[in-house]
Amino acid sequence: MLNSVLVHSPATLSNLGCGFDVFGLALAAPYDTIRLTRSPEPGVRIQHLDGYNLPTEATRNVAGVALLMLLQEVPETIGFDVEITKGIKPGSGVGSSAASAVGAVVAANALLGNRFTKMQLVEFAMAGEVVACGARHADNIAPAIFGGFTVVRAVEPVLDIIALPAPPLWVAVVHPQIEVKTSDSRKVLPAAVPLGLAVRQWANVAGLVAGFLTADYNLIGRSLDDYIVEPARLPLIPGLAEARKRALAAGAIGGGISGSGPSIFMLNRTEETARAVGAALGSVFAELGIAFNVYVGPVGTEGARVVAE
Amino acid sequence: MLNSVLVHSPATLSNLGCGFDVFGLALAAPYDTIRLTRSPEPGVRIQHLDGYNLPTEATRNVAGVALLMLLQEVPETIGFDVEITKGIKPGSGVGSSAASAVGAVVAANALLGNRFTKMQLVEFAMAGEVVACGARHADNIAPAIFGGFTVVRAVEPVLDIIALPAPPLWVAVVHPQIEVKTSDSRKVLPAAVPLGLAVRQWANVAGLVAGFLTADYNLIGRSLDDYIVEPARLPLIPGLAEARKRALAAGAIGGGISGSGPSIFMLNRTEETARAVGAALGSVFAELGIAFNVYVGPVGTEGARVVAE
Repeated sequence: MLNSVLVHSPATLSNLGCGFDVFGLALAAPYDTIRLTRSPEPGVRIQHLDGYNLPTEATRNVAGVALLMLLQEVPETIGFDVEITKGIKPGSGVGSSAASAVGAVVAANALLGNRFTKMQLVEFAMAGEVVACGARHADNIAPAIFGGFTVVRAVEPVLDIIALPAPPLWVAVVHPQIEVKTSDSRKVLPAAVPLGLAVRQWANVAGLVAGFLTADYNLIGRSLDDYIVEPARLPLIPGLAEARKRALAAGAIGGGISGSGPSIFMLNRTEETARAVGAALGSVFAELGIAFNVYVGPVGTEGARVVAE
Repeated sequence: MLNSVLVHSPATLSNLGCGFDVFGLALAAPYDTIRLTRSPEPGVRIQHLDGYNLPTEATRNVAGVALLMLLQEVPETIGFDVEITKGIKPGSGVGSSAASAVGAVVAANALLGNRFTKMQLVEFAMAGEVVACGARHADNIAPAIFGGFTVVRAVEPVLDIIALPAPPLWVAVVHPQIEVKTSDSRKVLPAAVPLGLAVRQWANVAGLVAGFLTADYNLIGRSLDDYIVEPARLPLIPGLAEARKRALAAGAIGGGISGSGPSIFMLNRTEETARAVGAALGSVFAELGIAFNVYVGPVGTEGARVVAE
């Protein structure tokens, strides 16, 4: 039986333009690295091997809460020692908390002989999201578990996740170092949407799913646009409109706000285009005098995975 | 060169549950039969070989208006003699006007050496819909032209139709003989939708597209539900709730209002189930003392087509 595993758990894009609260896409990088070691001592002990000052008390740590949920379903008397090295900066809007929670439960499942289904792992990891942002949501958890493109059709009363393949795509993400609190980005959302606009939005949702499943890049590009959430959040992210403009000019297929921001993602056909688009995104924030990081990488076809024992 | 053709143009389901104003599905039957004959005499002359008393003046007839639009793009001096035998009852909510307009332009295209694209034919046929219901919409036109499952992503500024295959499915439709005016069924629609409900709706839209493209019947079934339009139209169609209940009990995958009603459709895995579901749908209206017709048939994999010269 395995005693210790090392897991990489990737960043993810949620919302993905038009699919607010529903769509998710896994990246190949950046990722969090989780070392999980089985212990005869019950409970969960966490160490962070990074400089982010995240809470290490299990009940206040996303990975800790997810593991405590999982342990409730384990009859053996065991515990876990956890070492987390975050490769994904907290608060960037690319599923940082989801990556740590998912990495922890995927590692635990490997140590326990893979007794849990992926859907169960999503349930455990969602408990971590409640600690991170107060809501039981799966739009970053689902792609981090399944990889590729995911649709969270429902969380309640029954969790319903549709895991779909994504065609080869390169993603450029810029993370401007400004703080957008999830609570603020929720506050600006409209309570209600004109029916005509809702129809345009779900027409794009339909187009995006069809585009992914038929590998139609043009269709993906024209279906990404979000008529409802992005316009409301535009004032929270300086440079967004200009970043989109330059990214499209550099050859991006399309893009939008990643999750609740402040990161901005753009999808691209090739690595070369993605690198040019990453540079174009960065140039906007350089000019604004806002520090930023740029990530460029392929869509992740698999989610979190054991990379070493 | 062909001088005369006979075309069958099928009934279609629009909206298809959650996809208000966006989704369409072609049936194999019923269909309108259009005989179109090329004439050296300009203009369009229409005869109806059915008992529905539809207008035969070209500018007031859906097929006539569509043909006049098409003729504007034809440099030759020609006209058409049209004989229409409606197999689809007007006002039933299964795309009766679309079928006649589409059949006419598909026939004309065959007579003109298929010089127009399917997208152009949709444009011509949409002019007929303006006569029929006052709006330039393509949600019945698109499946009647392309067959299978269609997504009208946009009508303006550029017509954008995504034609997708549908898995083998049998459709049961009941048409209760009550009048629901399209204008009335529009009037009951909410002006705005709570954001949370809109999200649930586009989650189903995503699920339905994924279900069709992966032939996942269970996913299709649970994604059909319409949280926005059907609840508003429920009072206009007596028996709807009971019809759905009995259809599901008889084995239907799911269903809803066809177009703006009053017809109700249910999707089914097999012909046998579809027949049982058709009978279950009919039983509701028999008990209510409302006359009705039931249609049972497979999804139409192709749209309107030339069946004889």
